[in-house]
Amino acid sequence: MTTIQDVAVNRFNLPLAEVLTDAKHGDHTHFELITATVRLSDGSEGTGYSYTGGRGGHAIAAMIQHDLTPFLIGKDAHDVESLYDAMQWHMHYVARGGVASFAISAVDIALWDIRCKKADQPLWKMAGGSSDRCNAYCGGIDLNFPLEKLVAQTEGYLASGFNAVKIKIGQPDLADDVTRIAAIRDVLGPDRPFMVDANYAMSVPQAIEACHAFKPFDLMWFEEPTIPDDYFGYGEIARATGMPLAMGENLHTIHEFEYAFRNSQLSFIQPDASNCGGITGWLQVAEQSVEHDIPICSHGMQELHVSLVSARSNAGWLEVHSFPIDQYTTRPLVVEDHLAVAPNTPGTGVVFDWDKLRDSHHA
Amino acid sequence: MTTIQDVAVNRFNLPLAEVLTDAKHGDHTHFELITATVRLSDGSEGTGYSYTGGRGGHAIAAMIQHDLTPFLIGKDAHDVESLYDAMQWHMHYVARGGVASFAISAVDIALWDIRCKKADQPLWKMAGGSSDRCNAYCGGIDLNFPLEKLVAQTEGYLASGFNAVKIKIGQPDLADDVTRIAAIRDVLGPDRPFMVDANYAMSVPQAIEACHAFKPFDLMWFEEPTIPDDYFGYGEIARATGMPLAMGENLHTIHEFEYAFRNSQLSFIQPDASNCGGITGWLQVAEQSVEHDIPICSHGMQELHVSLVSARSNAGWLEVHSFPIDQYTTRPLVVEDHLAVAPNTPGTGVVFDWDKLRDSHHA
Ligand SMILES: [Mg+2]
Ligand SMILES: [Mg+2]
Repeated sequence: MTTIQDVAVNRFNLPLAEVLTDAKHGDHTHFELITATVRLSDGSEGTGYSYTGGRGGHAIAAMIQHDLTPFLIGKDAHDVESLYDAMQWHMHYVARGGVASFAISAVDIALWDIRCKKADQPLWKMAGGSSDRCNAYCGGIDLNFPLEKLVAQTEGYLASGFNAVKIKIGQPDLADDVTRIAAIRDVLGPDRPFMVDANYAMSVPQAIEACHAFKPFDLMWFEEPTIPDDYFGYGEIARATGMPLAMGENLHTIHEFEYAFRNSQLSFIQPDASNCGGITGWLQVAEQSVEHDIPICSHGMQELHVSLVSARSNAGWLEVHSFPIDQYTTRPLVVEDHLAVAPNTPGTGVVFDWDKLRDSHHA
Repeated sequence: MTTIQDVAVNRFNLPLAEVLTDAKHGDHTHFELITATVRLSDGSEGTGYSYTGGRGGHAIAAMIQHDLTPFLIGKDAHDVESLYDAMQWHMHYVARGGVASFAISAVDIALWDIRCKKADQPLWKMAGGSSDRCNAYCGGIDLNFPLEKLVAQTEGYLASGFNAVKIKIGQPDLADDVTRIAAIRDVLGPDRPFMVDANYAMSVPQAIEACHAFKPFDLMWFEEPTIPDDYFGYGEIARATGMPLAMGENLHTIHEFEYAFRNSQLSFIQPDASNCGGITGWLQVAEQSVEHDIPICSHGMQELHVSLVSARSNAGWLEVHSFPIDQYTTRPLVVEDHLAVAPNTPGTGVVFDWDKLRDSHHA
């Protein structure tokens, strides 16, 4: 039997090229990448990872090192879904979401990397196989950008081959959000998909008012208008305004997704494999999304999600996130004819450039 | 202005006198205690803490050390509720429960210790002041105990001054649960309060069947019959059987408690200040419990909760938990006339015996 021999954990604190701001998390100057490399007794290995907006990475790494690694050593790596369940129950008392979801995600992705390599298949085939490419949009973290810079960023996105864009909203004055949305719709023209993201800065009544104000601009979706815990509030906003809503990046357990699917009247779901239980957790949400007839999208780490979103028959949109994790891999995201293309190599296709990570790390 | 100068974090791995087992977490051989001592610029200090069933403590300590401490240093310690909110938002992306709730709890309790000392008041007065004593029951972790030992444990509880007892249930065969419940009811006699706890080992239909089987034994409550995430499932069980239900130890955010209050038809609520946001978080749940007219109880760390439960006008029952944290303090829990008595010294009244902790720690 091939068993797990070791898990090597690393945490990198990676600087952003400039300060990025959203309505609820404030300024981002760095992001954290936490990697977990699982080694088997036959010498094979796989790497998974999670990331944060700059806080909590030490706790994630500590849980992988002190709790998950001793639990995994000696276990059969083959049945990834059983190991996933076992890790969830092992950590349950301090879990039900939060840091445990991030830590388990990193390990689960590593186990999938091994699984795909052993099957000699790329992830997009193992995760559903519908296609090797999918729709993609650029997601700015740009609440602090002056309008001129916001316009220039959008023009840059279009110039680099994308045809869909998301901006942050949640300015203190709703009129300023409207001005910015109008300006970006102008740059995009009437046909290119355009989304906005409030990072839950609004109350339900504020969000309803905003939806009415945004009506003329034909938004593809309004992301996280209000706090994700308020599943029923989302439903209220959608019913009151007809605005298509999206969320998922802050949901960490299958139960939370189920409440959202049932009560939030979402038009798009956006699980993030780095914090919803890795590839196993993401695929569970994907199965739910089919049942609820909602296109499956993603949040963050485009270099991995490109394979997952492409793989699914109800694929929605891949977010190309402003945390450039893909720039630290040997294959930064590939875009052809506005579509993101999944790697075709066995494994997840995410291979880190460890030297670049070490050189960029800010202690 | 008196500001926060430092937070000292410690983690202790403390052995249990014997292996304790419940239906969902398996064997417990140790528990973890994570302490946070906050020091102010004026030299004053307070200590808070959290605990786990043996896993996750490194992650909790890492978050306090690497994320909360740098955030708190230099801040005014006076407005505990504002600091609590600020910590919640600071960690939000990796939080919404889980490890962050445990880490924030430890710091919040330390801030309350300082607040009470500065006011020269014991916690029971600062947290409501209704009384300095409350009803208490012994909560066994005894699923693995042979019946004879279970009976002896119960007799021991009564001999040491308690008049209410909870046992674990969730044996593979429901008939065995019934046998054990009948035997303990026999020891207790018809009038002493008696509770059972399944640690969510059952499905909703299984729990309904169990409730019917437990009917003859006049249970005060059935705790965590099914997975706490299934708020509506609890409501279903309560409506189908009339059995009084209790939960709370696995709810970590105010939103989770709100869903439970609204949908779970609970007869008792059991927040744990070590994982629901400290004293600030616990008191928020206590306010909700008044609105919903449900007695407020507690889970774990009796040496602290005795002050909180006693303080409240709708006080329910204090759990005297089988993790003996109080034995590592200078004042193990005091019981008079079957009532648990809160400490009357300024602060939380929980003062650790650091030498005993260090001596007992298993690396
Ligand atoms: Mg977003
Ligand atoms: Mg319990």
